[in-house]
Amino acid sequence: MTSHKNVPLSSNAAHPLQATPPQPYYPPLRDASDKQSCAASLRCEGAVSMARGFKAAGMHAGFRRNPTRFDLALVVADEPCAAAATFTTNVFCAAPVRVSQDHLEGVGYSLMRGCVINSANANAATGEKGLQAARETARMVGDVLGCPATEILVASTGVIGVHLPLDPFVSALPAMAQALSSSGGDDAARAIMTTDTCPKQALQRFSGDDIGYKGQTFTVGGMAKGSGMIMPMMATMIAVITTDAPLAPHVLHRSLKRAVSLTFNKVTIDSDTSTNDCCFAFASGAAASKPVVPFATESTALAAFDQALQAVCQSLARQMACDGEGATRLITINVSGAASPDDADCAARAVANSPLVKTAVCGHDANWGRIAMALGKSGAQFNQEAVAIDIMGLAVCRGGLTVAFDEDEALRRFEQKEIIIDIDLGAGSDQTQVWTCDLTKEYVAINGDYRS
Amino acid sequence: MTSHKNVPLSSNAAHPLQATPPQPYYPPLRDASDKQSCAASLRCEGAVSMARGFKAAGMHAGFRRNPTRFDLALVVADEPCAAAATFTTNVFCAAPVRVSQDHLEGVGYSLMRGCVINSANANAATGEKGLQAARETARMVGDVLGCPATEILVASTGVIGVHLPLDPFVSALPAMAQALSSSGGDDAARAIMTTDTCPKQALQRFSGDDIGYKGQTFTVGGMAKGSGMIMPMMATMIAVITTDAPLAPHVLHRSLKRAVSLTFNKVTIDSDTSTNDCCFAFASGAAASKPVVPFATESTALAAFDQALQAVCQSLARQMACDGEGATRLITINVSGAASPDDADCAARAVANSPLVKTAVCGHDANWGRIAMALGKSGAQFNQEAVAIDIMGLAVCRGGLTVAFDEDEALRRFEQKEIIIDIDLGAGSDQTQVWTCDLTKEYVAINGDYRS
Repeated sequence: MTSHKNVPLSSNAAHPLQATPPQPYYPPLRDASDKQSCAASLRCEGAVSMARGFKAAGMHAGFRRNPTRFDLALVVADEPCAAAATFTTNVFCAAPVRVSQDHLEGVGYSLMRGCVINSANANAATGEKGLQAARETARMVGDVLGCPATEILVASTGVIGVHLPLDPFVSALPAMAQALSSSGGDDAARAIMTTDTCPKQALQRFSGDDIGYKGQTFTVGGMAKGSGMIMPMMATMIAVITTDAPLAPHVLHRSLKRAVSLTFNKVTIDSDTSTNDCCFAFASGAAASKPVVPFATESTALAAFDQALQAVCQSLARQMACDGEGATRLITINVSGAASPDDADCAARAVANSPLVKTAVCGHDANWGRIAMALGKSGAQFNQEAVAIDIMGLAVCRGGLTVAFDEDEALRRFEQKEIIIDIDLGAGSDQTQVWTCDLTKEYVAINGDYRS
Repeated sequence: MTSHKNVPLSSNAAHPLQATPPQPYYPPLRDASDKQSCAASLRCEGAVSMARGFKAAGMHAGFRRNPTRFDLALVVADEPCAAAATFTTNVFCAAPVRVSQDHLEGVGYSLMRGCVINSANANAATGEKGLQAARETARMVGDVLGCPATEILVASTGVIGVHLPLDPFVSALPAMAQALSSSGGDDAARAIMTTDTCPKQALQRFSGDDIGYKGQTFTVGGMAKGSGMIMPMMATMIAVITTDAPLAPHVLHRSLKRAVSLTFNKVTIDSDTSTNDCCFAFASGAAASKPVVPFATESTALAAFDQALQAVCQSLARQMACDGEGATRLITINVSGAASPDDADCAARAVANSPLVKTAVCGHDANWGRIAMALGKSGAQFNQEAVAIDIMGLAVCRGGLTVAFDEDEALRRFEQKEIIIDIDLGAGSDQTQVWTCDLTKEYVAINGDYRS
């Protein structure tokens, strides 16, 4: 690993930092606008209803007591369209997860009209009564839209173990149907927030010119809610993606699964997996000229779509990690030189989930010994003598040994809102990227200072 | 699961709690004496040198600046005796781990004279120079004891990535050899402490009367150091067990591996695995009448020894969990009804490692939804409809659904220093027990408020 000595591991690890004088060590990153700037790329207000053929709405329906907090979201296609979804793997999965899986006929894709999402109640650990409530919700939405209940996906987020009240749906759905519009995306994104400090929305467009769809422009937009657990037993991540690109349901499903595995599934706030996680995608095809020709598998068009989809999902995933409970820093962990993709993943996750690494970042401590410890326990195959580690572009470990570095410069680089850790295992050519956030007293306060 | 309704899961979950009036919610558990009482069973001062045929010493040798803090320990048998060891599985393992493995000829057992342990420097991530230092240490100890270097096991705990100074060994070892005595165990136990708030020592005796060794009494004693990371890059757990029972090295090794898997390996403070973990065991046979007949495999004598060994290791393991960084509560997680031993283990570990469960215990919150979430993500096979959960003997979940419980009574039970969580997965007959501690702001302060 002599070639590595004091050379940044990758170009994205080198930060052109201005030589500012030292500043206080813990710059606050608490207000929503600051967190938004932390993962600003592709962020776009109202993104989920900006693809052609979609409308959205968000309102206060009554799941919360505070009448200024929205708590019910609808995202609806003008016509039944291709839909796909991925769901939590948690055995303790919630009722709406099961009902949505049923509506997608157990394969994860079908033709659908849209989805309804409530916050403030997870409808999880609610048994048969919870399943009936979730089915009834889909029926009520189908009634106001004029479609079968089975064309509606349902999702819930909030308290676990409390039965879902149906009155808010009864009273709000007629007005929600009236309010549906192509500019309703921001309201919908706000309605699914729980302890999120800001809505998470992202948009990407791509041209059809070079991919066989001349003169046509396609849009991929999405919204997500993140990792909040401030309320007792809160169930967490939900994302909705819409696109006006033309895709068959099974193709959309395959693209979604790939994008989710590279983005949302690479986020870990605290290693805990919610009972309610789900990601829905809808493809209207409304931006394609008639007659609509769906993107073929293995085509350049599908590749362009996949790229846009992954970009939107990555932006939402980073926005989520940024807004992790109590977080002051987004942490990006790049692992390269792994012997296999699984090794890259487990090494990166071990570092991302290590409370000792996360508290070190909180304390602005370029503590590569804790990173080495986490790599060593991860199960990934490597020799410690081959390992190189950079923190914010500073070489701190080469050949498994300490490299002297400028500690003042390290402290200056920790002022950045995104902390980048580059690891080369020196064991192969596979790589991955994982996002997390630092572990602060605020996290313990949010999750521990509560008593039911 | 109707038979479970409101019935404690197991007898050890039912606590005979006196009806004391409600008290403040966060009783301090910060001072060492309090932590000692938390896992008092078998605790015994000086235990590691109480088995016949052993001597120990602990001193200030100079690895630390503070001359009142001991930092070098010796545990020595009068004659070469059966020895066995288990080591960290961390790929980034420390130099002394490798050297001790070599001395045990790669199989983990042999005949040995004793071990030397320093604190304040882990001799980890120190490359070839670190290996040479560890070998030199063994040679120096061999010289003062009059035995080959290969009959000495070495261990280090402390800062990672700093070269081990040899001067403290040179200056202290002659005096240490003079100081060796059968009452030196407490000094040794104090010398291996790092951020431990108290020494960890345990003793168990058993009679030879009914196991073919009439009139003979055997002793198993041990010391350990726990889970502290307050200094940068601290490498953690080390344990030494001595016994005067007669055992062949390979039999001792098998017993040690079993005991470690059921005790030390069931402790998780923060899911992080040290680079320096090791557990040494020595069996002198000095309590057996001549001619010494080693305990046969499959014998009642070996079963009695295994029981005592596991009891000592369990006591040390619980003392360690009690003294976890920032901990206010020992948490014992009992999982039963698992479909396999692996399922029981991964379910219990998922709960023990969940920051959401650990912060809930810190906040005195009987939040079974977080326990359910952790079980659901663990990978263990079960149906949520079959799950029963008790917290401190209170039924909180039956058949995967909420059970109403007396919240005032729950708060009272959280006043106990040990919080017991009983989980029945309803999927089989395998079970396990795992120990951890709660996650507090103090943990983040200890590990985050430091800057190198």
